Amino acid sequence: MIRRLAGSLPQGVGIGDDCAVVALPKGHEPLVTTDFSIENVHFRREWHPADSVGWRCLARGLSDIAAMGGDPRAVFLSLAFPKELPQKWVNGFFSGFLKLAKQYEVQLAGGDIAESPAGVLADIVVLGSVPKGKSVLRSGARVGDFVYVTGTLGASVATLEVLREGKKPRRSAHRRHFYPEPRTKAGQYLRKNRLASAMTDTSDGLSVDLAHICEESGVGAVIYAESLPRLPGRKGLLAALHGGEDYELLFTASPKAKVPALIAGVHITRIGEILDGKAIRIADAQGRSKPLQPEGWQHFG
Amino acid sequence: MIRRLAGSLPQGVGIGDDCAVVALPKGHEPLVTTDFSIENVHFRREWHPADSVGWRCLARGLSDIAAMGGDPRAVFLSLAFPKELPQKWVNGFFSGFLKLAKQYEVQLAGGDIAESPAGVLADIVVLGSVPKGKSVLRSGARVGDFVYVTGTLGASVATLEVLREGKKPRRSAHRRHFYPEPRTKAGQYLRKNRLASAMTDTSDGLSVDLAHICEESGVGAVIYAESLPRLPGRKGLLAALHGGEDYELLFTASPKAKVPALIAGVHITRIGEILDGKAIRIADAQGRSKPLQPEGWQHFG
Repeated sequence: MIRRLAGSLPQGVGIGDDCAVVALPKGHEPLVTTDFSIENVHFRREWHPADSVGWRCLARGLSDIAAMGGDPRAVFLSLAFPKELPQKWVNGFFSGFLKLAKQYEVQLAGGDIAESPAGVLADIVVLGSVPKGKSVLRSGARVGDFVYVTGTLGASVATLEVLREGKKPRRSAHRRHFYPEPRTKAGQYLRKNRLASAMTDTSDGLSVDLAHICEESGVGAVIYAESLPRLPGRKGLLAALHGGEDYELLFTASPKAKVPALIAGVHITRIGEILDGKAIRIADAQGRSKPLQPEGWQHFG
Repeated sequence: MIRRLAGSLPQGVGIGDDCAVVALPKGHEPLVTTDFSIENVHFRREWHPADSVGWRCLARGLSDIAAMGGDPRAVFLSLAFPKELPQKWVNGFFSGFLKLAKQYEVQLAGGDIAESPAGVLADIVVLGSVPKGKSVLRSGARVGDFVYVTGTLGASVATLEVLREGKKPRRSAHRRHFYPEPRTKAGQYLRKNRLASAMTDTSDGLSVDLAHICEESGVGAVIYAESLPRLPGRKGLLAALHGGEDYELLFTASPKAKVPALIAGVHITRIGEILDGKAIRIADAQGRSKPLQPEGWQHFG
């Protein structure tokens, strides 16, 4: 069945051999990330146009590679959809997927297509590479490091809230939700210039992703609420703290590191500091602080 | 959701960073293969015990790496299942999956778990490696090469037929169906000793897989029906020609190549010859031949 359906795949999907052979630059080692995108979990067909679904499912993987400071090389797409899904939807999915792939020079190097009993399900694998031993891990944060973030936080769930209200947000005004740009160049810059001591992407939301860095590094942190690059109001603050799918980079750097204010066109904001201990706290402008619990956005939905 | 469910993953699944970093031996390049295993397409819960489903879904990927002559290194598992699936089934799945992984020294290096709207769906990615430029491709068959196969053909669909009749075959007597052994060592031997000019695995059935080699190599072939290592009778012949999921290796080698009769404990049988042109034919003991159409087993089911 797969080979019959594969006829509907665009050019670039290699089914000519048992495996794809991926050439890496000399001295590089492979990075691998996999991401499921499941209908009614990660997207809704009534909310997300097909090309946005295709774009977003690849963006998740590219963002993981960016968070290691790596170069994305190849993507593999396994796509399952129900028989009755219109071909137009599949074409739209590929159009968004391939547009992002082209923009980031990532080759669609293989995959699988199958019929699903219910709903659309895409599993992507991105293979990237990094000079051997040079990946930026979550475990490298040290006490005294500053905490930084690229771009703005909370924009994606802000769009989600508009969608939940039954409104139709203009896609061009809500690109961070519908067509997020992975911070590939910023991640590479931070790795090449040895600026980031630890890094991850904000796919789950700042409170969760910062907890990952702190846990892996065995440290605590304080976040300055006033410094967060975010939308206004209490809702903007909650979205910045707990909203996922922003695909910004969250990283730590030594106070001695010269972190630019702008990297590859993206603003960099200092939002906190790494502390001794295990506690993660959020402080206001008056210096009052309270614990920052790692919570996903679904708790607020 | 994924992180919450990930608690049920066995040790060895790395969720500590954004990507898995996979170390490769010096001078090696990565091989990547992805395979969907979908309930009621690739397996049935009433036919296949959970550990067989887990085993088979990994075996498919290992077999793809074997068919390039590669070394399997790491596997990534994305598993979606319905909320109501018993934990016992999931445990059984992992038990079969990890047993095979251990046997072939492949590390479960990451993945994703999600809720599926209906049915079990597993997508696996196996990352392997091969010395740079040394992969055995499907495109290397030359006119005059002999065609070989490892093991026996048709055993897997023979079990499938028993299952279709509503019988309960003993698993120990039907291991090639329930617990197929990928021909990793044989593939590596053939690559290291430069014996195979082209290679693939018999995942789709001999008629289909041989057509892939011929198409990619721009050649034709003749298969000698009498020489096929198979079960007796006309049904045995059809199973050998068109039955998939045997995960044997199908390869070609120069007439000058000294191909052993046994490699890594597996019998090697010469079953045909590569010819000029595009036709693929099957010949009987009397030398009469007819076209061999590439047909999957479902046509006979």
